Amino acid sequence: MHTPHGRIRSPFFMPIGTTGFVKTLTPDELKTLGAEIILANTYHLYLRPGANAIKKFGGLHKWMNWNGPILTDSGGYQVFSLHENRKSPHVSTKMPHTRVKISDKGVEFKSHIDGSVHFFTPEKVIKIENKIGADIIMALDECIPHNADKTYAAGAMKRTHEWAVRCKKAHKSPSQALFAIVQGGMFKDLRVESAKFISDLDLPGIAIGGLSVGETKQKMFEMLEVVIPHLNAKKPIYLMGVGSPIDLLEAIDRGVDMFDCVMPTRIARHGSFWTTAAKQNIKNTKYKLDQKPLDLSCSCYTCQKFTRSYMRHLFMEKETLGMRLMTIHNLNFLLNLMRQARIAITKGKFGQFKKSFLAKFKESDE
Amino acid sequence: MHTPHGRIRSPFFMPIGTTGFVKTLTPDELKTLGAEIILANTYHLYLRPGANAIKKFGGLHKWMNWNGPILTDSGGYQVFSLHENRKSPHVSTKMPHTRVKISDKGVEFKSHIDGSVHFFTPEKVIKIENKIGADIIMALDECIPHNADKTYAAGAMKRTHEWAVRCKKAHKSPSQALFAIVQGGMFKDLRVESAKFISDLDLPGIAIGGLSVGETKQKMFEMLEVVIPHLNAKKPIYLMGVGSPIDLLEAIDRGVDMFDCVMPTRIARHGSFWTTAAKQNIKNTKYKLDQKPLDLSCSCYTCQKFTRSYMRHLFMEKETLGMRLMTIHNLNFLLNLMRQARIAITKGKFGQFKKSFLAKFKESDE
Repeated sequence: MHTPHGRIRSPFFMPIGTTGFVKTLTPDELKTLGAEIILANTYHLYLRPGANAIKKFGGLHKWMNWNGPILTDSGGYQVFSLHENRKSPHVSTKMPHTRVKISDKGVEFKSHIDGSVHFFTPEKVIKIENKIGADIIMALDECIPHNADKTYAAGAMKRTHEWAVRCKKAHKSPSQALFAIVQGGMFKDLRVESAKFISDLDLPGIAIGGLSVGETKQKMFEMLEVVIPHLNAKKPIYLMGVGSPIDLLEAIDRGVDMFDCVMPTRIARHGSFWTTAAKQNIKNTKYKLDQKPLDLSCSCYTCQKFTRSYMRHLFMEKETLGMRLMTIHNLNFLLNLMRQARIAITKGKFGQFKKSFLAKFKESDE
Repeated sequence: MHTPHGRIRSPFFMPIGTTGFVKTLTPDELKTLGAEIILANTYHLYLRPGANAIKKFGGLHKWMNWNGPILTDSGGYQVFSLHENRKSPHVSTKMPHTRVKISDKGVEFKSHIDGSVHFFTPEKVIKIENKIGADIIMALDECIPHNADKTYAAGAMKRTHEWAVRCKKAHKSPSQALFAIVQGGMFKDLRVESAKFISDLDLPGIAIGGLSVGETKQKMFEMLEVVIPHLNAKKPIYLMGVGSPIDLLEAIDRGVDMFDCVMPTRIARHGSFWTTAAKQNIKNTKYKLDQKPLDLSCSCYTCQKFTRSYMRHLFMEKETLGMRLMTIHNLNFLLNLMRQARIAITKGKFGQFKKSFLAKFKESDE
């Protein structure tokens, strides 16, 4: 995949830089880790520092000093989730949404920062994303809870389709690749309908939204299997908000190219880290005098420089250096997993690679 | 000055790594900044992770992966200050100390972490410092409030002298340089007496304690002027817990070689930064769209890479990356000031350098 800020190789994982930074890390550290693209969020950047401020600085790349590719999420997910519960990024199960006013025209929402009222239309979101200047921009969609009923899911899907068409029409910046989003809740027929509709728009890429929002993993993979055969296989397929190492490999196996997720960075800030064996937590007493690095087979900066004992100490002292070093480790783990997956795919041995990884890896050993 | 972990050039400033880390930074970043020595704290390391744990890892240098010189403060200051007010590092003005039991033998204190009771004697502190393995170790002293009366100040001074003698006797590790501490409160005659006594111990270095604890700057400089003529000028003179750029230059002018202070790192985490003009705060609205670096004349990583606008954004978002980048800037500022002072001294132009710096610099423009 080619962008104005460089090539990206599929499959890839995008570290999350919601508000114009990947928490705890500098852009140089992200480069060193081999991150090829990062994700930022239109909703957040619109609220702070504002699209015009970013434009004034020559766009997000210059402002944050990251010269690799960037994708901006439209903010649809945030509009529909942050208003319900400021602390949780998960979509509320309450419906219909009580604190956003949604119509075919657009969506009125309150800022999670100061409660001020704002109105997003598909056209406005594209205009904001044009100002921010990311390489890939997302259409506005309506994200629904995983337990939404069929009528609700169908209505939201229809609106998402109409909004995608309007986004396509409003988008005037050819250097930015617009992706639209497949929705349809947990209903196979809706998912198929949405896949066909979004694929037919013939945009540079296709995203699958509304998954990993509380449904079972089995359900998520089922939906992927229903959707992907109806997408143009030549276009990059982006599964939004996923996920764990296992989820990534399973989704790649089903044809997904792109991922983003807060997991590696968020769990890092709470002391959790991945090894090829399992997810573990450094605050565990057993690491108090452990002289080994987090993962003996890892080549990241943290594992080259510090012991588990020292890392545990940093976390017991609530020191941000610990969060940073753990973020480096977890991102390296996931980015490296993607590199290994690419190599395996090139060799035609992805199935074998996945099987061998899953045989060793436990989702959690905390 | 030569240590087992390298040479240090006077005058110098020691970044504070109380608990085995300089907040927000890696040892590599400290090296890049040109920090030649850092300070750690016996009291804190004794409580967490414990001296035996550190010894097991081959000493503090190895454990924290910093191969430059380290100084460990004895913890006297912490024992006498942290018990009164967990949040403030300043010595309480209450006296006598109500929650430490002090006798000529030593001092009983409660851990500020869990309230557990511990007893420090001069001998025990030296034993702990030997295990930690710093290049320079401090004798146990009794630190008193700046408004202590003369009887109290004289008693504490006498005890500090006796403890210094006992520390010297207990210290058996010739690779570690033991420094003892001049006390005497705000009383000139006591300060002279203490200066003579500590200087006569003929240890590798001499520290001046109990200053910058709430007294006026004028008073602090007055005490320095009284003390320093009575010290052996061939030994390094260390003014503990100081200070601001102005304090450093004024103290160097009076003969001080070594400094430590939480100021550059602590104010950084609250958004304050130094330029050659003044101390300022990045959260000020005037920086919202400011495209300049923190300081146009600064060559630190932060100033090379990011604008004031972006730095302000990081602080408004309470992002730890902002605290780190600001810490880099402030430490660079102070370490660079020390480099410039060294050059000026070598050229015999320190007076001129100090005058020219002070003419431009305001203590605060926040």
